Amino acid sequence: MLLNSQLVNDHITFETAAQHAFMQVPIVLPNQNAGEVRQMMAGRQYEIASHVVVCGEKGLFLGVIRIEDLFAAQCETLMGEIMDRKAPVVAPGVDQEVAAWKAVQSKESALSVVDQNGLFVGIIPPHRLLAVLLAEHEEDLSRLGGFTRSTEEARSTSEEPVQRRFQHRVPWLLVGLGGALLAADFVGWFEVQLQQNVMLAFFIPSIVYLADAVGTQTETVVVRGLSVGVEMKRMVMRELLAGLAIGLALAAVAGPLVWWRWGIPSIALCVGLSVFAACSTATLAAMMLPCLLNTLSLDPAFGSGPLATVVQDLLSILSYFCIATALLR
Amino acid sequence: MLLNSQLVNDHITFETAAQHAFMQVPIVLPNQNAGEVRQMMAGRQYEIASHVVVCGEKGLFLGVIRIEDLFAAQCETLMGEIMDRKAPVVAPGVDQEVAAWKAVQSKESALSVVDQNGLFVGIIPPHRLLAVLLAEHEEDLSRLGGFTRSTEEARSTSEEPVQRRFQHRVPWLLVGLGGALLAADFVGWFEVQLQQNVMLAFFIPSIVYLADAVGTQTETVVVRGLSVGVEMKRMVMRELLAGLAIGLALAAVAGPLVWWRWGIPSIALCVGLSVFAACSTATLAAMMLPCLLNTLSLDPAFGSGPLATVVQDLLSILSYFCIATALLR
Repeated sequence: MLLNSQLVNDHITFETAAQHAFMQVPIVLPNQNAGEVRQMMAGRQYEIASHVVVCGEKGLFLGVIRIEDLFAAQCETLMGEIMDRKAPVVAPGVDQEVAAWKAVQSKESALSVVDQNGLFVGIIPPHRLLAVLLAEHEEDLSRLGGFTRSTEEARSTSEEPVQRRFQHRVPWLLVGLGGALLAADFVGWFEVQLQQNVMLAFFIPSIVYLADAVGTQTETVVVRGLSVGVEMKRMVMRELLAGLAIGLALAAVAGPLVWWRWGIPSIALCVGLSVFAACSTATLAAMMLPCLLNTLSLDPAFGSGPLATVVQDLLSILSYFCIATALLR
Repeated sequence: MLLNSQLVNDHITFETAAQHAFMQVPIVLPNQNAGEVRQMMAGRQYEIASHVVVCGEKGLFLGVIRIEDLFAAQCETLMGEIMDRKAPVVAPGVDQEVAAWKAVQSKESALSVVDQNGLFVGIIPPHRLLAVLLAEHEEDLSRLGGFTRSTEEARSTSEEPVQRRFQHRVPWLLVGLGGALLAADFVGWFEVQLQQNVMLAFFIPSIVYLADAVGTQTETVVVRGLSVGVEMKRMVMRELLAGLAIGLALAAVAGPLVWWRWGIPSIALCVGLSVFAACSTATLAAMMLPCLLNTLSLDPAFGSGPLATVVQDLLSILSYFCIATALLR
């Protein structure tokens, strides 16, 4: 367990802002003027020169100047006058996608990394931010699709050979298959009810489908939210209320439709209640699973895609048959 | 129809590389030297100065120089010597995400837009590329989740109020509900078979689940592939073969398991064949639907998420009961 959490921490550390920061950037004092700085930069080799960093004594970060503004400035203009004091900064330990997202939000293409003492650490250049966003995008999609592969190049996913497609996808599907056969067992528990009322079987696909569809929506929101650093507790209540509202709406449509089409009020009531139950439990499962795995120091990614879907299916089938048993005795 | 396709075209035009290009950038001749260029740039206002564009006569694009390389160069170094002739370029009409992806591939943070005559049009700066990647990411996730909302900000999806969550999600779910009730009708056609052999109902969730899970994987690959400009025909064969292989593998596991657990060879055979059929048809449906909609000048996005899933469900249920009817007479 210790080893596991160690591994997770190493992984997270590797993907923080500090790992992406470049140190060889032009650093100037606030009382230097533009002519001086342009002169100083000529002939020097920087890793990043699209931004000039203004630092006070002992490397205290003060602000950033875009290279465009440095060129536009009059020779005698002081750096302290034109620097952007509100340029976006991140702490060294911030997750890479949160950092990239922050840059986009502030319409900036580079981010300064500043430590807790206000000292300048480095700049994350635009091409790193781009690579991070693309990699995280792939990771999010892999989670939702249930691939056993996280950060990889975009095009490769759509173009990789058949054998690798197979290897990346089958593991989670086998887990799902195990769950699906468990679902068969669950339905088997209600064999008597099914024999008495074979019409109950008609609505199994609807219940499973709706639990899947609603659950996938919540997974999408949670996977995305966790990626960009939204705290779970900020999502839970709203998402849950949305799930309940969606469940109510779909139940209100499904119930009357079933009554009209199949003409049996008790079945219609049973389907309506089960649709509501399926939507609510699917939302709950889609949110709780990533949290639970996170608490156990396991990758919350396993809480979306095929695993979450099968849990949602099992819960919704159980609730459907329990409701049916109660209503149709 | 004309109006529709007009709308689609306008939409696409708005999201091309040319729309993101900035024109006010430093443009130099190949025989100017670094000292001269640095002198020339001082005091000028550029929209983008992280790259210098080298053009020949009449605006013919020759190459790009990173600002870092301009600073590092000796005064007398000619622009033609240090320019990158292989800097990534895109045509004005290229889709924005394809352009962004090209920049990341070439580890560049800005892209030159060059028209078919080789004339320089503008530069897409890093912050635009970042915004594009984030927006397209949101769009991809919305497609898979079945939200009626495309390009919007990341954080907002996870933090938007309950009422808007509801509005964005219910429309596709209602379409899905319609399909789900159609599925109930389909199952109803086989009422007699179900009455004779109620065990058939046990495996409905498994079939629906597997069709969903396999279909979602293909959708993920297709949505992603189309976004970054992979041609459909390059994906079809591999994806289809992968779908068949996955179907075979899961059938080979499911069949014996069902035999062992429920002890009826004919049911086991029926489930095995249906698992294979469900995986294959789900892969096919997940690929064909976006193509079909594309051909009809409709947004291929509608071909993923809830709509694709419900089509996959209907096909897999039909095939399951047809196989059952044939095997268990």
